[in-house]
Amino acid sequence: MNEIHKNTKFLIVGLGLMGGSYAKALKKQGYSVAAIDTRKSAIDYALENGIIDAGADFPDPDRIGEADIAVFALYPKVFSEWIGENQRFFRPGTLLTDVTGVKTGIVYEIQGKLRSDLEFIAAHPMAGREVYGVENSDEGIFRGANYIVVPTEKNTDRAIRTAKEIGELLGFARISELSPEEHDEMIGFLSQLTHCIAVALMTCSDNHHLADYTGDSFRDLTRIARINDAMWSELFLMNREALLRQMDLFAGEFSSLRKMLEERDADGLREKMRLSTERRAWFDKKS
Amino acid sequence: MNEIHKNTKFLIVGLGLMGGSYAKALKKQGYSVAAIDTRKSAIDYALENGIIDAGADFPDPDRIGEADIAVFALYPKVFSEWIGENQRFFRPGTLLTDVTGVKTGIVYEIQGKLRSDLEFIAAHPMAGREVYGVENSDEGIFRGANYIVVPTEKNTDRAIRTAKEIGELLGFARISELSPEEHDEMIGFLSQLTHCIAVALMTCSDNHHLADYTGDSFRDLTRIARINDAMWSELFLMNREALLRQMDLFAGEFSSLRKMLEERDADGLREKMRLSTERRAWFDKKS
Repeated sequence: MNEIHKNTKFLIVGLGLMGGSYAKALKKQGYSVAAIDTRKSAIDYALENGIIDAGADFPDPDRIGEADIAVFALYPKVFSEWIGENQRFFRPGTLLTDVTGVKTGIVYEIQGKLRSDLEFIAAHPMAGREVYGVENSDEGIFRGANYIVVPTEKNTDRAIRTAKEIGELLGFARISELSPEEHDEMIGFLSQLTHCIAVALMTCSDNHHLADYTGDSFRDLTRIARINDAMWSELFLMNREALLRQMDLFAGEFSSLRKMLEERDADGLREKMRLSTERRAWFDKKS
Repeated sequence: MNEIHKNTKFLIVGLGLMGGSYAKALKKQGYSVAAIDTRKSAIDYALENGIIDAGADFPDPDRIGEADIAVFALYPKVFSEWIGENQRFFRPGTLLTDVTGVKTGIVYEIQGKLRSDLEFIAAHPMAGREVYGVENSDEGIFRGANYIVVPTEKNTDRAIRTAKEIGELLGFARISELSPEEHDEMIGFLSQLTHCIAVALMTCSDNHHLADYTGDSFRDLTRIARINDAMWSELFLMNREALLRQMDLFAGEFSSLRKMLEERDADGLREKMRLSTERRAWFDKKS
């Protein structure tokens, strides 16, 4: 099993925004970085711009076989299929990690089918942008952000330490550890619910004629309404139960506010606003 | 009736964040600015920091009587009471304007009780911050923002022109005109609904333990959850019918998304996400 040293060779599988940002950050730290992506133009771009040292637009056994650490930045289903087909090319002892946004639906599946001489340690870099592709990658997105290592009982302490070390190399502000279940409950609330809200706000009425009047609040609430529908629908469905719970919590609370407004309950509204203000102030202090 | 020239004297009634920002912007342009606020410390602060030329912590007839243009930056109810008690001190021909966030509930009331030799032209500067008081005022909040003039049939063309001129002096990016009813429908959707959503998201569960994991999306959606409960509950109730309509539109759409998730309708979810992405891209292009 690896721990990171100056000769550690990284392989990025899936060279999009996130994979490309990993590659840039690791290259800046002096590591050797190879990449595999089905999109030839992504590999060409990354080679021409010195983002990677080597690359292939197919599962090249040479690239796979020389990796010490492989980072999967693929959609969940593709990730699982890739492992099934190509894990045979890894050298014994290679450490696998990922950037997938939900965990219970993928971690146990990957660990269940992985060769016994490989180890997969899940991680979730909570960073991103509303643009796609290696062409928009930027290692700056990790600054100030959270990196979560998501181990299961199958993981070794050494793999957990290595995953945290990767988070540090990438420049994340906070590195923490959650179980897959804790992770998915948290992400259902903080990320998926917020995206559902942004989408619903953007689609609930034909609001083209209002574009001239949008202030900061509408812009803030809909920034994340530009969403990769293929990726996010897959993530929502993989985390269906947790997300449904969070959506119900929110819808119930929203409905209470509506009732207070309907009944002209100024005290009730003010009480909610004070709680909201107090909680948000507490969040601000924490950050 | 006034039009603005270099000797125009402004009076700000209510020297909080918005009144203070008006004062700073107008002073920078070289105008004479006086202010009235019941909070003596606000007046003292503004005088000491050169934000106003004169001020009083009571409805000083001298200050009121010398104003060419008076800007009301008060809560709606206080604004209406103030006019009832103190309009007698204005010189004939003084132009009154305001910054109130809702219009139908206040404009007709003020215009209905105003002396016939005064004119009130409503305006809404769509700018703000999550902090309060003249101590936090900042004329920079107007840059890039919208300023809406909200005339009724009682207003003269000259007053409408003057109100727009004020918006230009303050540095607003876009100046437009809406009827009180159009304004309140728009503000119900773009501003009040978004604040309801932010409050409900912040209060729907005790989420203290999640503070370490908040990423940009949760922060974006709850920035406006720090809310002045006295002011916003008053604004919500004044715009009750329009806001209820907007809340129902949003809740219905959110519920459709939930149903799609429950029924594992990936195509339906992706269709909503594509619409949301397309609309938001269109908004981005417009701004």
